[in-house]
Amino acid sequence: MPGLIFLASTPSMPHDATPQRRAVVLLSGGLDSTVTAAVAKQEGCELFLLTIAYRQRHAVEIEQAKQVAAAFGVRNHLIVDVDLRALGGSALTGALAVPKDRHEQERAQGIPVTYVPARNLIFLSLAAAHAEVVGASAIYFGANVLDYSGYPDCRPEFIRAFEQAVAVGTKSGVEGARLEVRAPLLTLSKAEIIQLGMKLQAPLRLTHSCYDPIGSVACGRCDSCVIRRQGFAQAGVEDPVAYAVR
Amino acid sequence: MPGLIFLASTPSMPHDATPQRRAVVLLSGGLDSTVTAAVAKQEGCELFLLTIAYRQRHAVEIEQAKQVAAAFGVRNHLIVDVDLRALGGSALTGALAVPKDRHEQERAQGIPVTYVPARNLIFLSLAAAHAEVVGASAIYFGANVLDYSGYPDCRPEFIRAFEQAVAVGTKSGVEGARLEVRAPLLTLSKAEIIQLGMKLQAPLRLTHSCYDPIGSVACGRCDSCVIRRQGFAQAGVEDPVAYAVR
Repeated sequence: MPGLIFLASTPSMPHDATPQRRAVVLLSGGLDSTVTAAVAKQEGCELFLLTIAYRQRHAVEIEQAKQVAAAFGVRNHLIVDVDLRALGGSALTGALAVPKDRHEQERAQGIPVTYVPARNLIFLSLAAAHAEVVGASAIYFGANVLDYSGYPDCRPEFIRAFEQAVAVGTKSGVEGARLEVRAPLLTLSKAEIIQLGMKLQAPLRLTHSCYDPIGSVACGRCDSCVIRRQGFAQAGVEDPVAYAVR
Repeated sequence: MPGLIFLASTPSMPHDATPQRRAVVLLSGGLDSTVTAAVAKQEGCELFLLTIAYRQRHAVEIEQAKQVAAAFGVRNHLIVDVDLRALGGSALTGALAVPKDRHEQERAQGIPVTYVPARNLIFLSLAAAHAEVVGASAIYFGANVLDYSGYPDCRPEFIRAFEQAVAVGTKSGVEGARLEVRAPLLTLSKAEIIQLGMKLQAPLRLTHSCYDPIGSVACGRCDSCVIRRQGFAQAGVEDPVAYAVR
Protein backbone atom coordinates (compact mmCIF):
# COMPACT_ATOMS: atom_id res chain seq x y z
CA MET A 1 0.00 0.00 0.00
CA PRO A 2 1.06 3.63 -0.40
CA GLY A 3 3.95 4.79 1.71
CA LEU A 4 4.83 7.87 3.66
CA ILE A 5 5.06 10.94 1.48
CA PHE A 6 4.78 13.50 4.26
CA LEU A 7 8.10 15.21 5.01
CA ALA A 8 7.84 16.67 8.50
CA SER A 9 11.23 18.32 8.40
CA THR A 10 10.72 20.45 5.30
CA PRO A 11 7.86 22.88 5.83
CA SER A 12 7.34 25.06 2.77
CA MET A 13 7.62 28.46 4.44
CA PRO A 14 9.27 31.36 2.60
CA HIS A 15 11.88 33.27 4.61
CA ASP A 16 10.32 36.67 4.12
CA ALA A 17 6.73 35.81 4.97
CA THR A 18 4.76 35.46 8.19
CA PRO A 19 4.04 31.81 8.97
CA GLN A 20 1.05 30.48 7.08
CA ARG A 21 -1.78 28.85 8.93
CA ARG A 22 -1.38 25.13 8.56
CA ALA A 23 -4.41 23.13 7.52
CA VAL A 24 -4.98 19.41 7.15
CA VAL A 25 -7.20 18.78 4.12
CA LEU A 26 -9.00 15.46 3.80
CA LEU A 27 -8.44 14.66 0.14
CA SER A 28 -10.28 11.69 -1.31
CA GLY A 29 -9.40 12.44 -4.90
CA GLY A 30 -13.02 13.28 -5.60
CA LEU A 31 -14.53 16.50 -6.87
CA ASP A 32 -15.64 17.95 -3.53
CA SER A 33 -12.41 17.36 -1.62
CA THR A 34 -10.36 18.75 -4.51
CA VAL A 35 -12.38 21.96 -4.56
CA THR A 36 -12.10 22.05 -0.75
CA ALA A 37 -8.30 21.92 -1.04
CA ALA A 38 -8.45 24.79 -3.53
CA VAL A 39 -10.49 26.81 -1.02
CA ALA A 40 -7.96 26.12 1.76
CA LYS A 41 -5.17 27.27 -0.55
CA GLN A 42 -7.16 30.36 -1.52
CA GLU A 43 -7.67 31.13 2.16
CA GLY A 44 -3.90 31.27 2.61
CA CYS A 45 -3.26 27.94 4.31
CA GLU A 46 -0.21 25.77 4.00
CA LEU A 47 -1.73 22.46 2.95
CA PHE A 48 -1.16 19.09 4.60
CA LEU A 49 -3.17 16.71 2.45
CA LEU A 50 -4.45 13.54 4.06
CA THR A 51 -5.88 10.66 2.06
CA ILE A 52 -7.44 7.67 3.80
CA ALA A 53 -7.03 4.36 2.03
CA TYR A 54 -9.96 2.53 3.62
CA ARG A 55 -10.13 -0.45 1.24
CA GLN A 56 -12.90 1.29 -0.61
CA ARG A 57 -14.39 -0.26 -3.70
CA HIS A 58 -13.31 2.81 -5.66
CA ALA A 59 -9.63 2.68 -4.63
CA VAL A 60 -8.76 4.29 -7.97
CA GLU A 61 -9.50 7.61 -6.25
CA ILE A 62 -6.30 7.23 -4.21
CA GLU A 63 -4.25 7.42 -7.40
CA GLN A 64 -6.30 10.45 -8.39
CA ALA A 65 -5.57 12.03 -4.99
CA LYS A 66 -1.85 11.70 -5.68
CA GLN A 67 -2.27 13.43 -9.02
CA VAL A 68 -4.38 16.17 -7.46
CA ALA A 69 -1.69 16.75 -4.79
CA ALA A 70 0.93 17.02 -7.53
CA ALA A 71 -1.25 19.46 -9.49
CA PHE A 72 -1.48 21.67 -6.39
CA GLY A 73 2.30 21.44 -6.00
CA VAL A 74 1.84 20.16 -2.44
CA ARG A 75 4.61 17.97 -1.04
CA ASN A 76 2.90 17.21 2.27
CA HIS A 77 0.60 14.40 1.25
CA LEU A 78 0.07 11.59 3.71
CA ILE A 79 -1.79 8.41 2.83
CA VAL A 80 -2.99 6.40 5.81
CA ASP A 81 -4.30 2.85 5.65
CA VAL A 82 -7.42 2.00 7.64
CA ASP A 83 -9.19 -1.26 6.99
CA LEU A 84 -12.84 -0.20 7.14
CA ARG A 85 -13.76 -3.20 5.01
CA ALA A 86 -13.28 -5.35 8.12
CA LEU A 87 -15.94 -3.30 9.91
CA GLY A 88 -18.49 -3.96 7.18
CA GLY A 89 -21.89 -2.36 6.90
CA SER A 90 -21.53 -0.41 3.66
CA ALA A 91 -21.86 -0.86 -0.06
CA LEU A 92 -18.68 1.18 -0.48
CA THR A 93 -16.51 -1.33 1.36
CA GLY A 94 -18.47 -4.57 1.44
CA ALA A 95 -20.49 -7.00 -0.57
CA LEU A 96 -23.66 -4.88 -0.85
CA ALA A 97 -24.38 -3.65 -4.38
CA VAL A 98 -23.96 0.02 -5.21
CA PRO A 99 -27.39 1.30 -6.33
CA LYS A 100 -27.61 2.53 -9.92
CA ASP A 101 -29.82 4.85 -11.99
CA ARG A 102 -31.72 6.21 -8.98
CA HIS A 103 -33.87 9.29 -9.34
CA GLU A 104 -33.69 12.26 -7.01
CA GLN A 105 -36.72 11.07 -5.03
CA GLU A 106 -35.13 7.66 -4.44
CA ARG A 107 -31.85 9.24 -3.37
CA ALA A 108 -33.71 11.47 -0.91
CA GLN A 109 -35.23 8.50 0.94
CA GLY A 110 -33.23 7.96 4.11
CA ILE A 111 -29.62 7.06 4.59
CA PRO A 112 -28.24 5.19 1.55
CA VAL A 113 -26.41 1.84 1.62
CA THR A 114 -23.31 3.70 0.50
CA TYR A 115 -23.20 5.29 3.96
CA VAL A 116 -20.04 3.99 5.67
CA PRO A 117 -20.72 3.76 9.42
CA ALA A 118 -19.04 6.64 11.25
CA ARG A 119 -16.75 7.29 8.28
CA ASN A 120 -16.38 11.02 8.74
CA LEU A 121 -15.98 10.54 12.48
CA ILE A 122 -13.08 8.17 11.77
CA PHE A 123 -11.58 10.38 9.03
CA LEU A 124 -11.83 13.55 11.10
CA SER A 125 -10.25 11.73 14.05
CA LEU A 126 -7.28 10.76 11.89
CA ALA A 127 -7.13 14.34 10.57
CA ALA A 128 -7.16 15.66 14.15
CA ALA A 129 -4.24 13.38 15.00
CA HIS A 130 -2.33 14.59 11.96
CA ALA A 131 -3.18 18.21 12.76
CA GLU A 132 -1.82 17.75 16.25
CA VAL A 133 1.45 16.29 14.92
CA VAL A 134 2.09 18.98 12.29
CA GLY A 135 0.70 21.87 14.33
CA ALA A 136 -2.25 22.62 12.06
CA SER A 137 -5.06 24.78 13.41
CA ALA A 138 -7.69 23.74 10.88
CA ILE A 139 -9.10 20.69 9.18
CA TYR A 140 -10.82 21.24 5.84
CA PHE A 141 -13.21 18.61 4.54
CA GLY A 142 -15.68 18.44 1.71
CA ALA A 143 -18.89 17.64 3.56
CA ASN A 144 -22.02 18.75 1.80
CA VAL A 145 -25.56 18.69 3.14
CA LEU A 146 -27.52 19.16 -0.07
CA ASP A 147 -26.53 16.27 -2.27
CA TYR A 148 -26.05 13.86 0.61
CA SER A 149 -28.69 14.88 3.09
CA GLY A 150 -28.86 11.24 4.14
CA TYR A 151 -25.33 11.17 5.57
CA PRO A 152 -25.64 12.29 9.20
CA ASP A 153 -21.91 12.89 9.54
CA CYS A 154 -22.08 15.73 7.02
CA ARG A 155 -24.32 17.88 9.23
CA PRO A 156 -23.21 21.07 10.98
CA GLU A 157 -24.32 19.70 14.39
CA PHE A 158 -21.89 16.85 13.95
CA ILE A 159 -19.03 19.13 12.95
CA ARG A 160 -19.52 21.30 16.05
CA ALA A 161 -19.77 18.25 18.35
CA PHE A 162 -16.59 16.85 16.83
CA GLU A 163 -14.72 20.12 17.42
CA GLN A 164 -15.75 19.95 21.05
CA ALA A 165 -14.51 16.35 21.43
CA VAL A 166 -11.14 17.43 19.99
CA ALA A 167 -10.99 20.50 22.25
CA VAL A 168 -11.32 18.38 25.40
CA GLY A 169 -9.68 15.16 24.21
CA THR A 170 -6.37 16.06 22.58
CA LYS A 171 -3.11 17.37 23.95
CA SER A 172 -3.19 20.51 21.80
CA GLY A 173 -6.84 21.12 22.63
CA VAL A 174 -6.22 20.85 26.36
CA GLU A 175 -3.22 23.17 25.97
CA GLY A 176 -5.53 25.80 24.50
CA ALA A 177 -5.01 25.45 20.75
CA ARG A 178 -8.29 25.50 18.89
CA LEU A 179 -8.70 23.11 15.99
CA GLU A 180 -11.30 24.46 13.62
CA VAL A 181 -13.18 22.07 11.33
CA ARG A 182 -14.05 23.87 8.12
CA ALA A 183 -16.52 22.51 5.58
CA PRO A 184 -16.61 25.31 2.98
CA LEU A 185 -18.86 23.40 0.57
CA LEU A 186 -21.44 22.51 3.19
CA THR A 187 -24.39 24.37 1.72
CA LEU A 188 -23.36 24.60 -1.93
CA SER A 189 -25.09 22.73 -4.74
CA LYS A 190 -22.97 20.48 -6.93
CA ALA A 191 -23.18 23.07 -9.71
CA GLU A 192 -21.96 25.76 -7.34
CA ILE A 193 -19.09 23.52 -6.20
CA ILE A 194 -18.06 23.00 -9.83
CA GLN A 195 -18.24 26.72 -10.55
CA LEU A 196 -16.16 27.45 -7.46
CA GLY A 197 -13.63 24.85 -8.54
CA MET A 198 -13.39 26.40 -12.01
CA LYS A 199 -12.91 29.87 -10.51
CA LEU A 200 -10.13 28.63 -8.22
CA GLN A 201 -8.55 26.62 -11.04
CA ALA A 202 -8.86 23.38 -9.10
CA PRO A 203 -7.68 20.40 -11.19
CA LEU A 204 -11.18 19.01 -11.79
CA ARG A 205 -9.94 16.93 -14.73
CA LEU A 206 -8.03 14.75 -12.26
CA THR A 207 -10.90 14.10 -9.87
CA HIS A 208 -12.75 10.84 -9.53
CA SER A 209 -16.27 10.60 -8.14
CA CYS A 210 -17.60 7.15 -9.09
CA TYR A 211 -18.52 4.68 -6.32
CA ASP A 212 -18.24 1.66 -8.59
CA PRO A 213 -15.73 2.24 -11.39
CA ILE A 214 -15.12 -0.26 -14.17
CA GLY A 215 -11.35 -0.39 -14.02
CA SER A 216 -10.54 3.31 -13.84
CA VAL A 217 -13.59 4.42 -15.84
CA ALA A 218 -16.55 5.97 -14.00
CA CYS A 219 -19.75 3.91 -14.27
CA GLY A 220 -21.95 6.94 -14.96
CA ARG A 221 -24.91 5.41 -13.11
CA CYS A 222 -24.23 5.37 -9.34
CA ASP A 223 -25.62 8.19 -7.17
CA SER A 224 -22.28 9.94 -7.16
CA CYS A 225 -21.89 9.83 -10.95
CA VAL A 226 -25.50 10.94 -11.51
CA ILE A 227 -25.14 13.90 -9.12
CA ARG A 228 -21.80 14.90 -10.64
CA ARG A 229 -23.09 14.78 -14.20
CA GLN A 230 -26.18 16.79 -13.33
CA GLY A 231 -23.94 19.30 -11.54
CA PHE A 232 -21.71 19.82 -14.58
CA ALA A 233 -24.77 20.13 -16.80
CA GLN A 234 -26.35 22.72 -14.51
CA ALA A 235 -23.05 24.60 -14.23
CA GLY A 236 -22.85 24.73 -18.02
CA VAL A 237 -19.40 23.17 -17.94
CA GLU A 238 -18.24 20.09 -19.79
CA ASP A 239 -17.29 17.26 -17.41
CA PRO A 240 -13.68 16.36 -18.26
CA VAL A 241 -14.16 12.78 -16.96
CA ALA A 242 -15.07 9.84 -19.23
CA TYR A 243 -18.02 7.59 -18.35
CA ALA A 244 -18.75 3.97 -19.27
CA VAL A 245 -22.39 4.93 -19.94
CA ARG A 246 -23.12 8.32 -21.48
CA MET B 1 -2.11 -8.95 9.05
CA PRO B 2 -4.87 -10.55 11.10
CA GLY B 3 -8.05 -11.43 9.30
CA LEU B 4 -11.73 -11.17 9.95
CA ILE B 5 -12.79 -13.25 12.93
CA PHE B 6 -16.15 -11.56 13.52
CA LEU B 7 -19.11 -13.71 12.49
CA ALA B 8 -22.06 -11.41 11.99
CA SER B 9 -24.50 -14.18 11.21
CA THR B 10 -24.05 -16.23 14.37
CA PRO B 11 -25.06 -14.20 17.40
CA SER B 12 -24.68 -16.19 20.59
CA MET B 13 -28.19 -15.76 21.96
CA PRO B 14 -29.89 -18.62 23.82
CA HIS B 15 -33.42 -19.39 22.63
CA ASP B 16 -35.03 -19.06 26.03
CA ALA B 17 -33.45 -15.77 27.10
CA THR B 18 -34.23 -12.15 26.44
CA PRO B 19 -31.74 -10.58 24.03
CA GLN B 20 -28.55 -9.51 25.73
CA ARG B 21 -27.33 -5.96 25.38
CA ARG B 22 -24.58 -5.95 22.81
CA ALA B 23 -21.38 -4.14 23.70
CA VAL B 24 -18.24 -3.42 21.71
CA VAL B 25 -15.21 -3.74 23.99
CA LEU B 26 -11.93 -2.15 22.93
CA LEU B 27 -9.46 -4.89 23.81
CA SER B 28 -5.78 -4.07 23.55
CA GLY B 29 -4.60 -7.24 25.26
CA GLY B 30 -3.43 -5.17 28.22
CA LEU B 31 -4.46 -5.42 31.84
CA ASP B 32 -7.03 -2.59 31.88
CA SER B 33 -8.90 -3.57 28.73
CA THR B 34 -9.04 -7.21 29.83
CA VAL B 35 -10.57 -6.25 33.18
CA THR B 36 -12.94 -3.94 31.28
CA ALA B 37 -14.10 -6.87 29.16
CA ALA B 38 -14.71 -8.86 32.35
CA VAL B 39 -16.84 -5.99 33.68
CA ALA B 40 -18.89 -5.87 30.48
CA LYS B 41 -19.47 -9.61 30.72
CA GLN B 42 -20.40 -9.29 34.41
CA GLU B 43 -22.89 -6.57 33.47
CA GLY B 44 -24.67 -9.03 31.19
CA CYS B 45 -23.47 -7.86 27.79
CA GLU B 46 -22.88 -9.95 24.73
CA LEU B 47 -19.28 -9.05 23.88
CA PHE B 48 -18.00 -7.86 20.53
CA LEU B 49 -14.28 -7.49 21.08
CA LEU B 50 -12.42 -4.99 18.91
CA THR B 51 -8.64 -4.86 18.74
CA ILE B 52 -6.87 -2.13 16.81
CA ALA B 53 -3.60 -3.10 15.19
CA TYR B 54 -2.08 0.36 14.88
CA ARG B 55 1.51 -0.66 14.10
CA GLN B 56 2.37 -0.13 17.74
CA ARG B 57 5.84 -0.89 19.01
CA HIS B 58 4.32 -3.45 21.36
CA ALA B 59 2.44 -5.42 18.71
CA VAL B 60 2.83 -8.54 20.85
CA GLU B 61 -0.27 -7.33 22.69
CA ILE B 62 -2.38 -8.23 19.65
CA GLU B 63 -1.49 -11.90 20.11
CA GLN B 64 -2.33 -11.52 23.79
CA ALA B 65 -5.69 -10.02 22.83
CA LYS B 66 -6.49 -13.14 20.80
CA GLN B 67 -5.66 -15.33 23.78
CA VAL B 68 -7.75 -13.14 26.08
CA ALA B 69 -10.70 -13.41 23.67
CA ALA B 70 -10.33 -17.19 23.65
CA ALA B 71 -10.15 -17.28 27.46
CA PHE B 72 -13.45 -15.37 27.61
CA GLY B 73 -14.93 -17.81 25.11
CA VAL B 74 -15.88 -14.92 22.82
CA ARG B 75 -16.13 -15.66 19.12
CA ASN B 76 -16.84 -12.10 18.03
CA HIS B 77 -13.35 -10.68 17.93
CA LEU B 78 -12.52 -8.23 15.18
CA ILE B 79 -8.99 -6.99 14.53
CA VAL B 80 -8.80 -3.81 12.47
CA ASP B 81 -5.61 -2.44 10.91
CA VAL B 82 -4.97 1.30 11.19
CA ASP B 83 -1.55 2.64 10.31
CA LEU B 84 -1.03 5.23 13.05
CA ARG B 85 2.73 4.93 12.57
CA ALA B 86 2.33 6.98 9.40
CA LEU B 87 0.82 9.81 11.45
CA GLY B 88 3.83 9.91 13.78
CA GLY B 89 4.13 11.98 16.92
CA SER B 90 4.42 9.25 19.54
CA ALA B 91 7.01 7.07 21.18
CA LEU B 92 4.57 4.16 20.92
CA THR B 93 4.52 4.20 17.13
CA GLY B 94 7.56 6.16 16.03
CA ALA B 95 11.25 6.66 16.52
CA LEU B 96 11.08 8.47 19.89
CA ALA B 97 12.48 6.45 22.78
CA VAL B 98 10.13 5.04 25.41
CA PRO B 99 11.14 6.59 28.76
CA LYS B 100 12.39 4.16 31.40
CA ASP B 101 12.73 4.03 35.19
CA ARG B 102 10.71 7.23 35.75
CA HIS B 103 9.51 8.07 39.22
CA GLU B 104 5.95 9.08 40.01
CA GLN B 105 6.84 12.79 40.01
CA GLU B 106 8.36 12.52 36.55
CA ARG B 107 5.36 10.61 35.21
CA ALA B 108 3.04 13.27 36.61
CA GLN B 109 4.69 16.05 34.62
CA GLY B 110 2.51 16.82 31.63
CA ILE B 111 1.52 14.65 28.72
CA PRO B 112 4.11 11.89 28.12
CA VAL B 113 5.82 11.11 24.80
CA THR B 114 3.92 7.82 24.80
CA TYR B 115 0.74 9.82 24.16
CA VAL B 116 -0.50 8.86 20.68
CA PRO B 117 -2.22 11.89 19.15
CA ALA B 118 -5.99 11.46 19.24
CA ARG B 119 -5.64 7.71 19.77
CA ASN B 120 -8.75 7.19 21.86
CA LEU B 121 -10.69 9.47 19.53
CA ILE B 122 -9.67 7.24 16.62
CA PHE B 123 -10.27 4.00 18.53
CA LEU B 124 -13.67 5.09 19.83
CA SER B 125 -14.62 6.19 16.31
CA LEU B 126 -13.81 2.72 14.99
CA ALA B 127 -15.72 1.20 17.92
CA ALA B 128 -18.71 3.42 17.14
CA ALA B 129 -18.65 2.21 13.54
CA HIS B 130 -18.51 -1.41 14.69
CA ALA B 131 -21.28 -0.79 17.24
CA GLU B 132 -23.46 0.63 14.49
CA VAL B 133 -22.89 -2.42 12.26
CA VAL B 134 -23.58 -5.05 14.94
CA GLY B 135 -26.32 -3.10 16.72
CA ALA B 136 -24.44 -2.60 19.99
CA SER B 137 -25.71 0.04 22.40
CA ALA B 138 -22.51 0.41 24.41
CA ILE B 139 -18.78 0.75 23.96
CA TYR B 140 -16.61 -0.32 26.90
CA PHE B 141 -13.05 0.94 27.12
CA GLY B 142 -10.38 0.85 29.75
CA ALA B 143 -9.65 4.56 30.17
CA ASN B 144 -8.25 5.49 33.55
CA VAL B 145 -7.63 8.97 34.90
CA LEU B 146 -5.39 8.17 37.84
CA ASP B 147 -2.38 6.42 36.38
CA TYR B 148 -2.48 8.36 33.13
CA SER B 149 -3.65 11.78 34.16
CA GLY B 150 -1.53 13.16 31.31
CA TYR B 151 -3.65 11.55 28.58
CA PRO B 152 -6.43 14.04 27.80
CA ASP B 153 -8.46 11.46 25.89
CA CYS B 154 -9.02 9.48 29.09
CA ARG B 155 -11.00 12.26 30.77
CA PRO B 156 -14.76 12.16 31.45
CA GLU B 157 -15.29 15.46 29.56
CA PHE B 158 -13.88 13.82 26.47
CA ILE B 159 -16.05 10.73 26.83
CA ARG B 160 -19.22 12.84 27.10
CA ALA B 161 -18.23 15.01 24.13
CA PHE B 162 -17.55 11.90 22.07
CA GLU B 163 -20.96 10.43 22.92
CA GLN B 164 -22.52 13.65 21.69
CA ALA B 165 -20.61 13.53 18.39
CA VAL B 166 -21.84 9.97 17.85
CA ALA B 167 -25.41 10.91 18.75
CA VAL B 168 -25.57 13.57 16.04
CA GLY B 169 -23.17 12.07 13.51
CA THR B 170 -24.14 8.44 12.97
CA LYS B 171 -27.11 6.80 11.34
CA SER B 172 -28.13 4.94 14.49
CA GLY B 173 -27.66 8.06 16.61
CA VAL B 174 -29.85 10.14 14.31
CA GLU B 175 -32.44 7.36 14.34
CA GLY B 176 -32.64 7.66 18.12
CA ALA B 177 -30.42 4.83 19.36
CA ARG B 178 -28.16 5.95 22.15
CA LEU B 179 -24.60 4.67 22.15
CA GLU B 180 -23.23 4.77 25.67
CA VAL B 181 -19.48 4.94 26.21
CA ARG B 182 -18.61 3.17 29.43
CA ALA B 183 -15.24 3.45 31.15
CA PRO B 184 -15.74 1.36 34.29
CA LEU B 185 -12.12 1.69 35.44
CA LEU B 186 -12.00 5.44 35.07
CA THR B 187 -11.40 6.34 38.70
CA LEU B 188 -9.85 3.10 39.99
CA SER B 189 -6.22 2.75 41.05
CA LYS B 190 -4.13 0.07 39.37
CA ALA B 191 -4.32 -2.02 42.54
CA GLU B 192 -8.12 -1.72 42.52
CA ILE B 193 -8.22 -2.70 38.85
CA ILE B 194 -6.15 -5.81 39.59
CA GLN B 195 -8.37 -6.71 42.55
CA LEU B 196 -11.47 -6.27 40.39
CA GLY B 197 -9.91 -8.44 37.71
CA MET B 198 -9.12 -11.18 40.24
CA LYS B 199 -12.69 -11.04 41.59
CA LEU B 200 -14.16 -11.34 38.10
CA GLN B 201 -11.68 -14.09 37.18
CA ALA B 202 -10.32 -12.07 34.27
CA PRO B 203 -7.41 -13.89 32.57
CA LEU B 204 -4.74 -11.52 33.92
CA ARG B 205 -2.00 -14.08 33.20
CA LEU B 206 -2.56 -13.49 29.48
CA THR B 207 -2.39 -9.71 29.57
CA HIS B 208 0.50 -7.65 28.29
CA SER B 209 1.21 -4.12 29.46
CA CYS B 210 4.76 -3.26 28.37
CA TYR B 211 5.31 -0.36 25.94
CA ASP B 212 8.70 -1.63 24.82
CA PRO B 213 8.95 -5.42 25.09
CA ILE B 214 12.14 -7.35 24.36
CA GLY B 215 10.72 -9.99 22.06
CA SER B 216 7.62 -10.99 23.98
CA VAL B 217 9.11 -10.27 27.41
CA ALA B 218 8.04 -7.11 29.28
CA CYS B 219 10.91 -4.66 29.87
CA GLY B 220 9.93 -3.99 33.48
CA ARG B 221 11.10 -0.36 33.28
CA CYS B 222 8.71 1.67 31.11
CA ASP B 223 5.93 3.71 32.77
CA SER B 224 3.38 1.01 32.00
CA CYS B 225 5.51 -1.79 33.51
CA VAL B 226 6.37 0.31 36.57
CA ILE B 227 2.72 1.19 37.22
CA ARG B 228 1.62 -2.41 36.71
CA ARG B 229 4.23 -3.83 39.04
CA GLN B 230 3.43 -1.29 41.75
CA GLY B 231 -0.26 -2.13 41.31
CA PHE B 232 0.27 -5.84 41.81
CA ALA B 233 2.48 -5.14 44.83
CA GLN B 234 -0.13 -2.85 46.36
CA ALA B 235 -2.90 -5.36 45.62
CA GLY B 236 -0.88 -8.05 47.38
CA VAL B 237 -1.10 -10.28 44.32
CA GLU B 238 1.76 -11.88 42.45
CA ASP B 239 2.09 -10.58 38.89
CA PRO B 240 1.86 -13.64 36.63
CA VAL B 241 3.89 -11.87 33.90
CA ALA B 242 7.68 -12.29 33.51
CA TYR B 243 9.93 -9.21 33.26
CA ALA B 244 13.34 -8.76 31.69
CA VAL B 245 14.43 -6.67 34.71
CA ARG B 246 13.18 -7.66 38.16
